[in-house]
Amino acid sequence: MNIVVSGAYQTNFGELWNYSLEDLIFESINGALKDASRGKKEIDVVFFGNMLSSSLSSQNHISALINQFLKSNVPVIRVESACASGGVAIAQACTALESGQYEKALVIGAEKMTDFPVEQISYALMNAASEQERDAGLSFVGLYALMANQYIETFGATEQDLALPAIKNHKHAATNKKAQFPFEISLQQVMESPLVADPLRLLHCSPISDGAAAVVLEKNNKKKNNTTKIVASAQAGETLALSERDNFFTLQATEKAAKKAYTQAGLGPKDVSLLEVHDCFTIAELLAIEDLGLYKKGEGFVAMRNGDLQMGGKYPVNSSGGLKACGHPVGATGVKQMVEVVHQLRTKKPLVGLTHNIGGTGGTAVIHILQR
Amino acid sequence: MNIVVSGAYQTNFGELWNYSLEDLIFESINGALKDASRGKKEIDVVFFGNMLSSSLSSQNHISALINQFLKSNVPVIRVESACASGGVAIAQACTALESGQYEKALVIGAEKMTDFPVEQISYALMNAASEQERDAGLSFVGLYALMANQYIETFGATEQDLALPAIKNHKHAATNKKAQFPFEISLQQVMESPLVADPLRLLHCSPISDGAAAVVLEKNNKKKNNTTKIVASAQAGETLALSERDNFFTLQATEKAAKKAYTQAGLGPKDVSLLEVHDCFTIAELLAIEDLGLYKKGEGFVAMRNGDLQMGGKYPVNSSGGLKACGHPVGATGVKQMVEVVHQLRTKKPLVGLTHNIGGTGGTAVIHILQR
Repeated sequence: MNIVVSGAYQTNFGELWNYSLEDLIFESINGALKDASRGKKEIDVVFFGNMLSSSLSSQNHISALINQFLKSNVPVIRVESACASGGVAIAQACTALESGQYEKALVIGAEKMTDFPVEQISYALMNAASEQERDAGLSFVGLYALMANQYIETFGATEQDLALPAIKNHKHAATNKKAQFPFEISLQQVMESPLVADPLRLLHCSPISDGAAAVVLEKNNKKKNNTTKIVASAQAGETLALSERDNFFTLQATEKAAKKAYTQAGLGPKDVSLLEVHDCFTIAELLAIEDLGLYKKGEGFVAMRNGDLQMGGKYPVNSSGGLKACGHPVGATGVKQMVEVVHQLRTKKPLVGLTHNIGGTGGTAVIHILQR
Repeated sequence: MNIVVSGAYQTNFGELWNYSLEDLIFESINGALKDASRGKKEIDVVFFGNMLSSSLSSQNHISALINQFLKSNVPVIRVESACASGGVAIAQACTALESGQYEKALVIGAEKMTDFPVEQISYALMNAASEQERDAGLSFVGLYALMANQYIETFGATEQDLALPAIKNHKHAATNKKAQFPFEISLQQVMESPLVADPLRLLHCSPISDGAAAVVLEKNNKKKNNTTKIVASAQAGETLALSERDNFFTLQATEKAAKKAYTQAGLGPKDVSLLEVHDCFTIAELLAIEDLGLYKKGEGFVAMRNGDLQMGGKYPVNSSGGLKACGHPVGATGVKQMVEVVHQLRTKKPLVGLTHNIGGTGGTAVIHILQR
């Protein structure tokens, strides 16, 4: 696979009460097109990743709204895979370009989550869990707490280990102007934050956010300054219900997608210079660095203690601040991860970047590998 | 394009109070796999078309639920394009097969619409219209009434002409055991049915339905009995809002998608032996047969009067009974259209079939051409 990322743009993430979903979508489209030096009419196909527009914004068929904005008749396809909607949209765009039908694809991920009563937001998010687990009274933080407890019990991690990804990601976000929480937090702050679902505390959790991101992908772009390429795009799935799985500390979808992506790219975990991984809760980041093959199962938290995952470390993870500190407008997250990796590849010149986006408790995982 | 439809299945359409959305999805998967003589593990990628699962059934991330049912880790992608969700899912599957990444794709379209208060259903459906038009008090039947009035005024059609597609489609449905309304209706019944939005009456409108349909598509299937092939797959878009268009009697998305599809297939409208078109309201069928190039603009209703569109006529349209009489479980419709055309090609041996599925007031249109 050899797809150029010619344009990349992220809106601010946060509680953006002056912006509608449409405002966020249109800002991200304009930003990505400008970055790619492309006009609206040059795009051949559009993919739109969004989870909650029908539940919260009461708007379906946003594909046609994007046609209206672009003043064009190109195919626009909305995909929904819970919090992996953005990553799935990128993967579908890669497939469309690989099919030879199109040359230039625009991918948008966007979500408007604030401005609604918190009960409505929670209810809408819980729609991505299995009906049985919801009926049993489990929330997403409850489901991830089950994963965290089993990880701690099985591998001897501590509750302090759960705090480390949050502290690191806030540190990274402190220099990211687009981040929802651009400030550092201390171990003490995390450990003293309210318990939400034992052992997960408030500061282990990603926030409710508004935001959008967009990328322009091109199949045959030979311009010299477009040196950032997607070399692998892989999606895999697993059971919706946690209760149907062998254990709670391995996400099969991540493992399978990673294997496919490394094979496509002709690279291994050791070749990766930088990653954006799906840290909806801090336990998810610990599982991800293991399921992606950077560390053996049960050894990721030791590497986290050693500072391996910080900027400047062996595998810098979530330079954007991750979902935890940059924010998590769910459908935008997968696209934002790519915008961040492109930004890093362009400015700080690492060689290989990886994005890892999951839906729900890992029922869907999407991985992209980028190279410059 | 040369994609074999190796399996095709439709559940009953209707008010299926004993079936959940999951039941319908799983029945259609089992039916299509059986028809294709394929096992769950043989499928490489799945596309799922659905509009309302988050609004009505409170379930997002159904992709992972499908993984759970298939007991596999393949990519499952949900697409949403209002009432064109099913057609878009098929088009995406064709693109995925054309990319060379996959050999066998399963496509499901499903919708559970009854069992909910009618206000909730109406509200959920209206989410597919533009915010401005909803705020102006327009419903979908209101929007299509605007189209019908302009068509009548511009081309001299009568209110009786609006009844003809409904009468024809009910006649076709009378022999379809899967249809929601398998009985004939008379001109008098249509003309005396309650006015919903002038000039559209109740019997000009498709119903609220439950149902699912699925197809198995294969890239390299050389079995002799699989002679039904997709030779063209095309999607196009237009403005979400009717108010942004030049006129109300041409659906640009249909025109553009048709042009692309005929070019891909190397065929013209005259080569088409049979069609399933999107008759959400009877005016939509009149517009479709013109926008698809079967008749010049403003001449479709005359052909309808002459019986051209009946079974046995020049261009038999909606042998299934169409959305009007077979039923319209929105996300299932586009897939059901293909199941019907495959059934006709297999049994009655016409040469070329065409499916036409639109979203909203035509903001999305998807066209497939099948050949045996």
